[in-house]
Amino acid sequence: MSDRAGKPLRVALLGCGTVGAEVIRLLQEQRADFAARVGAPLEIAGIAVRRPQRRRDLDVDPALFTADAAGLVARDDIDIVVEVIGGIEPARSLILSAMSHGASVVTANKALLAEDGATLHDAADKHGVDLYFEASVAGAIPLLRPLRESLAGDTVHRVLGIVNGTTNYILTRMDETGAGFTEALDEATELGYAEADPSADIDAFDAAAKAAILAGLAFHTRVTISDVYREGIADVTAAAVSSAREMGCVVKLLAICERSADGRGVGVRVHPAMIPRSHPLAGVREAYNAVFIEAEAAGQLMFYGRGAGGAPTASAVLGDIVAVARNKVKNALGTGESAYAELEARPMGETRTRYHVSLDVADKAGVLAAVAQVFSKQDVSIQTVRQSGRGDDATLVIVTHSASDAALSATVEDLRALDIVRDVASVMRVEGEETA
Amino acid sequence: MSDRAGKPLRVALLGCGTVGAEVIRLLQEQRADFAARVGAPLEIAGIAVRRPQRRRDLDVDPALFTADAAGLVARDDIDIVVEVIGGIEPARSLILSAMSHGASVVTANKALLAEDGATLHDAADKHGVDLYFEASVAGAIPLLRPLRESLAGDTVHRVLGIVNGTTNYILTRMDETGAGFTEALDEATELGYAEADPSADIDAFDAAAKAAILAGLAFHTRVTISDVYREGIADVTAAAVSSAREMGCVVKLLAICERSADGRGVGVRVHPAMIPRSHPLAGVREAYNAVFIEAEAAGQLMFYGRGAGGAPTASAVLGDIVAVARNKVKNALGTGESAYAELEARPMGETRTRYHVSLDVADKAGVLAAVAQVFSKQDVSIQTVRQSGRGDDATLVIVTHSASDAALSATVEDLRALDIVRDVASVMRVEGEETA
Repeated sequence: MSDRAGKPLRVALLGCGTVGAEVIRLLQEQRADFAARVGAPLEIAGIAVRRPQRRRDLDVDPALFTADAAGLVARDDIDIVVEVIGGIEPARSLILSAMSHGASVVTANKALLAEDGATLHDAADKHGVDLYFEASVAGAIPLLRPLRESLAGDTVHRVLGIVNGTTNYILTRMDETGAGFTEALDEATELGYAEADPSADIDAFDAAAKAAILAGLAFHTRVTISDVYREGIADVTAAAVSSAREMGCVVKLLAICERSADGRGVGVRVHPAMIPRSHPLAGVREAYNAVFIEAEAAGQLMFYGRGAGGAPTASAVLGDIVAVARNKVKNALGTGESAYAELEARPMGETRTRYHVSLDVADKAGVLAAVAQVFSKQDVSIQTVRQSGRGDDATLVIVTHSASDAALSATVEDLRALDIVRDVASVMRVEGEETA
Repeated sequence: MSDRAGKPLRVALLGCGTVGAEVIRLLQEQRADFAARVGAPLEIAGIAVRRPQRRRDLDVDPALFTADAAGLVARDDIDIVVEVIGGIEPARSLILSAMSHGASVVTANKALLAEDGATLHDAADKHGVDLYFEASVAGAIPLLRPLRESLAGDTVHRVLGIVNGTTNYILTRMDETGAGFTEALDEATELGYAEADPSADIDAFDAAAKAAILAGLAFHTRVTISDVYREGIADVTAAAVSSAREMGCVVKLLAICERSADGRGVGVRVHPAMIPRSHPLAGVREAYNAVFIEAEAAGQLMFYGRGAGGAPTASAVLGDIVAVARNKVKNALGTGESAYAELEARPMGETRTRYHVSLDVADKAGVLAAVAQVFSKQDVSIQTVRQSGRGDDATLVIVTHSASDAALSATVEDLRALDIVRDVASVMRVEGEETA
């Protein structure tokens, strides 16, 4: 079809950690398959690492390793640059340099895409190269093509995702064993599901970056991490998990991307939420990830799989390498960024959701009336109230109908100011049902 | 990027049933979105139907309707032909004619693809046009791009799919209410989940066609429906469903595509099977579909959603229309067929699986020994035996370890010949666990 067919395509790697090494291993092992799928052999042209001399258990010419990443991406014999170093800099500068030298780019860098994807997309467009980033969200789960291509003829209303394996492992353990947060985190750390410094996961920075990327893909618009409302799981109590269970729900850290009612805005948020056990996301256990999509014509869709790990992430990177390599062979470009919708990021206060509020109250006459009065003042309608305990241990559990987050926040503030409320023990959003 | 940008793309529809009408409705309603996503407006150039004069509740110029499908596809002002009439002929001739006149084709026709996909793929290749068929398998669930593109850098080992909504609805009811097959089928018919003549669904012809298409996509090879082993659900008894439940399993009609152990063959089959309730497919209820994939690097993946219905199928068709339209705008072609692997279709007898066998036996000494002897003769190793009942009601339930289907079939034949075996009450494969 073009004069490129058959001529080897040269691939440069930036980074050779778990994912990079797995990519190299599979490229070498399945050389013949890749050549057949691409229409031309893939050749490794160079690997930028910090310590080129380090012994590595990889079947590649040691001369391919270099400490000079900038020099590697500036070479004019490179067709595809694979960036798996992560972080904002030098990753961004290297990617931009690679593009300006005509290379297509495959990256797994969610932080960079969520912070400054626009710069990368604009550069890809300007230089006529591909930018693929399937590995940046939910590891091996194909999302980029389903959202950007398969659903290109549909209208996505909402995306609910479990996109962080560490927090899902912790919440699964809390649900299944009744463990508290600290205990479950310790177990996750011991098993290697949580990092020594777990903040990026626990405080939902990781999930927030992925939410921004998902929202951009689903709604044909640009969303950055600064648009994303973020709450981590460190305050999720064993009592809240148990209360969720009593309601037939389970607590999950959800990344939620929603089109606003007027269709011109998008709300993106990450926070713990209760979802019904009958919801397809409820069955996503341990370190698995899943993304649940509600679309106009397609209805409900879910994509499930491993969200992290060297091999799953390498699978996503390799799929992208094959795609951009095929495009190079055909002298074509893949589907570029689609951001025509230019939706406005809406503040969290405008979000409509349901709330589960658990209060420690004084056990005396008039408590319920006073509490109900506070909700009513903010126009928040109560769906159910359950009182348990007596005396100093009295607890009031309230589930509201759908209301704006601003009204619900104001309600909680007013409740805290109420004398008869000893403590607002937990406040959690309830998702996964039609909001009325 | 090319001189095509901005110039309207002309779309012809073959068929205007539920799916066709929904495609037209969405194309009209979301005209501006489609133009933005494609880079050019989409224009309906003609709609071939049997009765052009019939009143239709659609916002299109009545002059667009024609009874002359052959004339429509032979026009040289058509960029994209959407085939939603189904069946082998005249669909095949019309598609081939459209391609020879330079149109790219979007089709939902699983029967044609499974019977003679090779002819269509070869014609698309010869004429340099796209052939997209996302809607042909599992309705709105994106599978074509995930399998053909996202996983292009990975090696798929096995695909397990629930790809027929009617049978899944029936089996869900049997599992949840204890109903027998006929009762559950009646309910499905009443609710519109089953057609007046349900044979295509019940006897698994529909699922077999989809299995052939899935296998081709997953394994980069050509598979036709004649390569697919097929067993329907009409013989699934309430007793087998209940026995599955006791084993912690659920009965599903599964489409299974497996690479052979030597890597050079592929086995494709559709039959009822027991899977553990902990398997992600076990939670796929009612008319939902899901496809579960085991890949080398990605690990386990699952795609879940609505497998049928006008709107979900239209979503898939529209995604394909946008994709081929974008390609037309860029003067490019999408990823074509990938069938380089040329795997050999292996006979069912070579398949290795586990069996659940339920026998009505005479309650006397030596029964178990005699039965065990039959299994042992065929080298089929028994995992568990459970005897229940006494006298005339004695039942023996045997679950085997993994063995070849040929050995298991021979075992069942020998069991039938055994005097002390009154009846082989049910025989069902057990899937969804590592086969040893």
